Amino acid sequence: MSLETTKQRQLAAPAAARAFTAAHGVLDGAWVDAPYLEVDAAGTIVRAQTGLPSAPDRDRAPIPVHDLGRAVLLPGLINAHSHAFQRSIRGATHRAAAGDPSTFWSWRQAMYSAAQRLGPDGLYAVTRACFSEMLRAGITCVGEFHYLHHRPDGGLYDDPNELSNQIIRAADDVGLRLVLLEVFYQRAGDRRPPLPEQRRFCDPSLDVYLARVDALRARGVDVGVAPHSVRAVARPQLEQLADYAARAGLVMHAHVSEQPLENHECAAEHGGLTPTQVFAASGCLDRPRSFSAVHAIHVDAADLALLAAQHVCACPTTEADLGDGIVPAADHLTRGARIALGSDSNAIIDLFQEARLLEMNERLRSGRRLCLSAAERPLSLTLLDAATVAGASALGRADLGKLAVGAPFDAITLDRDHPTLADVASEHLLDAIMLAGSAAPVDRVYVAGHRRR
Amino acid sequence: MSLETTKQRQLAAPAAARAFTAAHGVLDGAWVDAPYLEVDAAGTIVRAQTGLPSAPDRDRAPIPVHDLGRAVLLPGLINAHSHAFQRSIRGATHRAAAGDPSTFWSWRQAMYSAAQRLGPDGLYAVTRACFSEMLRAGITCVGEFHYLHHRPDGGLYDDPNELSNQIIRAADDVGLRLVLLEVFYQRAGDRRPPLPEQRRFCDPSLDVYLARVDALRARGVDVGVAPHSVRAVARPQLEQLADYAARAGLVMHAHVSEQPLENHECAAEHGGLTPTQVFAASGCLDRPRSFSAVHAIHVDAADLALLAAQHVCACPTTEADLGDGIVPAADHLTRGARIALGSDSNAIIDLFQEARLLEMNERLRSGRRLCLSAAERPLSLTLLDAATVAGASALGRADLGKLAVGAPFDAITLDRDHPTLADVASEHLLDAIMLAGSAAPVDRVYVAGHRRR
Repeated sequence: MSLETTKQRQLAAPAAARAFTAAHGVLDGAWVDAPYLEVDAAGTIVRAQTGLPSAPDRDRAPIPVHDLGRAVLLPGLINAHSHAFQRSIRGATHRAAAGDPSTFWSWRQAMYSAAQRLGPDGLYAVTRACFSEMLRAGITCVGEFHYLHHRPDGGLYDDPNELSNQIIRAADDVGLRLVLLEVFYQRAGDRRPPLPEQRRFCDPSLDVYLARVDALRARGVDVGVAPHSVRAVARPQLEQLADYAARAGLVMHAHVSEQPLENHECAAEHGGLTPTQVFAASGCLDRPRSFSAVHAIHVDAADLALLAAQHVCACPTTEADLGDGIVPAADHLTRGARIALGSDSNAIIDLFQEARLLEMNERLRSGRRLCLSAAERPLSLTLLDAATVAGASALGRADLGKLAVGAPFDAITLDRDHPTLADVASEHLLDAIMLAGSAAPVDRVYVAGHRRR
Repeated sequence: MSLETTKQRQLAAPAAARAFTAAHGVLDGAWVDAPYLEVDAAGTIVRAQTGLPSAPDRDRAPIPVHDLGRAVLLPGLINAHSHAFQRSIRGATHRAAAGDPSTFWSWRQAMYSAAQRLGPDGLYAVTRACFSEMLRAGITCVGEFHYLHHRPDGGLYDDPNELSNQIIRAADDVGLRLVLLEVFYQRAGDRRPPLPEQRRFCDPSLDVYLARVDALRARGVDVGVAPHSVRAVARPQLEQLADYAARAGLVMHAHVSEQPLENHECAAEHGGLTPTQVFAASGCLDRPRSFSAVHAIHVDAADLALLAAQHVCACPTTEADLGDGIVPAADHLTRGARIALGSDSNAIIDLFQEARLLEMNERLRSGRRLCLSAAERPLSLTLLDAATVAGASALGRADLGKLAVGAPFDAITLDRDHPTLADVASEHLLDAIMLAGSAAPVDRVYVAGHRRR
């Protein structure tokens, strides 16, 4: 499969230059009336302003203008953490087995069973369906935290990147941008070899893993380096991965302090260190804004300080479903971390809901309102940032997540006449979208100027 | 306005007998394949079974069968707690004023401002829009907790039930069943007269209130008695309201322990009693299953015991929005209380989401999963009960909330091909609907056999 070829076909096929306008929208991070955007034949935004150009300007370079009417025009959403195959167990983990304590760990067993059953075709099919649902929910770029690498017994496919290729093909066929977060996984825990169900997650060695990543990069695939967690990766390998990522200029993602047990085991293995401290000691946090701590729930003050120049990726619906707890979003934001969002288990695919829960869960914790509100930025824009620019930054794609000159036209529209938005005054529209909304009003979806929905 | 006349026109217009069948559904509280329901000309279910009748049966009494195909057929949802007019401030309460501590109490000021602005026509318009959105979200009956009674200065309209009539008219025009929970409100708090913004909530006396309720009952309006809260109603009046409700056989609803301050003020006024204890001491809890404690968040063990034979009405999205806290749903259910659901502030109208959050917020609190699961009933059915039969019971309408012989055909269908439900195996469908779903897949909505959406 030639990725470049299909990528060009799907994401960058030449088209005519054109312009878009709508009643309201967010241009370069600010809520505006009458956004107007010109997009060139390659799908890149070449002009962004409020209001139509003056008549002489229009006459000089006439291009077709798509008037999106009463719609709200927003940047496409960035989903910074997904396990697409887990879409296959939506609704399938809510019955108690006899004597089942029903925790994250029993959920994980059900998830492992699903992971065992998938071959290349099955993985493609569920990933494609999942990515298609994402696109429909307004997501235009996904960071797929991909750890289903090899045959069920851990043996390599003829092409060691067989399953990665299925993820790439699914994204490509659907027309969704992909950053493939290639996961390194080596063990069940400290001095514990992988469980049988974990064998297919594990590369035979770090060298095999790095060779796979090299091969993907050589093909132009957008990749990130993802040590699964401090449980699954030992410190020497964390150091090597940090070195590799730094030399290659790649982002790093890892699960961090999702469950208390993870912290306890980490302390036992690493002389009392927290997972965040282990990542720091391994060099993973050396480069600002290059690391994303997924979850970062059970963190202390020292962890918060270490993550202040990095990203935290929150996944509130999954974190509730699995009994993980509430991401201390206000604490992270106050110290300077950027908060991105992920659909994670994909039981629910709705980044508007994830963004809302960032704030709402803080309200539940504190008994107060407007917890993530800052003097310099309205709450609704802070939440939209999490679903857009912060996710783009987490994925190393600072060009995405915004409607601005030089960015690709990855954009969505929301139907203002949807029952959830009808009758809301224009000045409160973005607040209603971010604090009381969902993905249901998402109407059109564009990726690189191409309409995908 | 003659309610009976319009009610008959809208909810009980004669129609031909017919039958409905679908791929899956919940019949009389149980998940089944191929539900089959016969509905008479009055809209009442006269036969309920799985699978089509045998050929001889069909030939004996041939009636048209509406095959709803792959749809999931569920009872219409019951919204046990709504303030329809608050729909007008959706999205309008998430900006901090200078020095605003941003709590429930500052939110209340914004809500009061909206309440002040509404005349009869305005109240009708916002209520109609709100009820229409409810119907579209699969709600077929609402308990409107109605406290906007009089002119802004507290003076009576020519018809003292003018604003109640607007609520009735809105429900009637939309085709939604209504239980009008007429609120009694008399003060800002212990020895504090109503604030200017609260004057229109207050009847000049309990007698005027009771005369209004009598007049509504005489017209056949389905009403409940609703002392607003222990803050707004003194103990002698609570006792009189309990007497009246008992004699008339009406349900009672009240806000109970939504905010800690409410508990503190109650203890100060009532010699250390909690709000629940004050309602109990006033006779409001004497009749089993006649009282609904709305919220019941900040409750102690004694409160839980007192509410065990009553209803708790949880409103999770509002309770998060306002920083109220998490309803201890597992504690209430374990002791025997029935948990109903409300859309409350109507910032969000989605009882599937409210039901899900009952469970998900417990997971966030406890770090465990399947918190509301009981040996005798699958979790998804417990959550559906909250959105249906428990709400019906809370509203004194035990005939509603179920698809069973003798009940009106108040029913909804969910589109199984909606992206959120596509590819989910039939055996996990109800779990996906209740634990990972939303109102978005709601397709058809029937009230008393009439299609309303």
